[in-house]
Amino acid sequence: MSLPDNFYIRRVEERDFEQVTETLKVLTTVGTIARASFSKLLKYWNEATVWDENNDKQIMQYNPIVIVDRRTESIAATGNILIERKIIHELGLCGHIEDIAVNSKYQGQGLGKLLIDQLVAIGFGYGCYKIILDCDEKNVKFYKKCGFGNAGVEMQIRK
Amino acid sequence: MSLPDNFYIRRVEERDFEQVTETLKVLTTVGTIARASFSKLLKYWNEATVWDENNDKQIMQYNPIVIVDRRTESIAATGNILIERKIIHELGLCGHIEDIAVNSKYQGQGLGKLLIDQLVAIGFGYGCYKIILDCDEKNVKFYKKCGFGNAGVEMQIRK
Ligand SMILES: CC(C)(COP(=O)(O)OP(=O)(O)OC[C@H]1O[C@@H](n2cnc3c(N)ncnc32)[C@H](O)[C@@H]1OP(=O)(O)O)[C@@H](O)C(=O)NCCC(=O)NCCS
Ligand SMILES: CC(C)(COP(=O)(O)OP(=O)(O)OC[C@H]1O[C@@H](n2cnc3c(N)ncnc32)[C@H](O)[C@@H]1OP(=O)(O)O)[C@@H](O)C(=O)NCCC(=O)NCCS
Repeated sequence: MSLPDNFYIRRVEERDFEQVTETLKVLTTVGTIARASFSKLLKYWNEATVWDENNDKQIMQYNPIVIVDRRTESIAATGNILIERKIIHELGLCGHIEDIAVNSKYQGQGLGKLLIDQLVAIGFGYGCYKIILDCDEKNVKFYKKCGFGNAGVEMQIRK
Repeated sequence: MSLPDNFYIRRVEERDFEQVTETLKVLTTVGTIARASFSKLLKYWNEATVWDENNDKQIMQYNPIVIVDRRTESIAATGNILIERKIIHELGLCGHIEDIAVNSKYQGQGLGKLLIDQLVAIGFGYGCYKIILDCDEKNVKFYKKCGFGNAGVEMQIRK
């Protein structure tokens, strides 16, 4: 399936401040963020690149995207893929999909899958040998529909 | 437990090329890596920093470390923690522990746990609100001994 005509996908921009932070609330605590701090974060995200020996493409460390509803300029979904340069797999690249959120009004319309497809295309476009993500048990079926398979166990430690 | 007298921990250096690549083979395919490429990787790893609003500490994006046996200058274990700057949790930092390997000769001596302790100390030292890692089911008990708990499911897609 391709993106319905009334939606488009692009990288996160400064003007997305309110809507992106709002959309992420379906996922977890966002907290209080100043607009100026958000701008500085985007500046960092837009400047951080990953070393590429052949120098044939510019690999962005962070790849935050949004799906936008053209009719209202509303953000329907957001997600990111962090690119990591490793030693293993011949100095391979691993993609980490992070912070996937579909606005509750827009869930169940296929946008989540299109968001993941786009992030996967970005990661494989850079040459990642694998792309991974961590999710709740309840979302495993969704990610299987996106072409992912079970890989392992996520463990965490908090302060 | 603290590190036994005959071991020390430090950041990966250029001279570790052969031994680090060898140590990582317990984990997965490493493949053929030229020494010069390894040096360029380290240069990238040593220069990549994470934006910090207060500018009060330098946060390294990659934190590759080794545990070295003083008696022989052999590398007993290696691991890394990748630092990610997010929007959620008030522009929070998340630590990703990656590529943990203890040389088979040195397994079962407590070095794996000391390696993880050190990576966790680095992550929390930077202010990470959580540190995560993915592992095989068979290693869950080891990570529980390191203070980690189950968090979710790792999913992957490969080309
Ligand atoms: C989980 C989430 C990302 C899915 O996005 P979505 O836009 O609602 O899902 P889609 O409409 O693209 O679903 C694609 C397919 O997966 C299926 N699917 C979606 N969520 C599912 C679930 N939890 N269980 C089973 N199937 C699911 C859909 O039925 C659809 O199947 P189809 O292609 O056969 O019709 C979204 O609901 C969400 O953001 N939820 C809240 C936050 C969250 O849990 N984030 C992920 C943390 S890991
Ligand atoms: C898994 C690994 C990192 C553990 O390191 P290690 O140095 O052998 O482990 P330690 O000696 O520090 O063990 C610390 C504790 O965990 C326990 N432990 C270690 N591995 C365990 C396992 N697989 N199952 C149950 N307990 C385990 C030890 O018994 C010890 O317990 P204790 O404190 O009660 O004595 C190491 O064996 C290794 O590199 N294995 C091969 C590669 C690999 O699997 N990497 C991890 C991929 S996720």
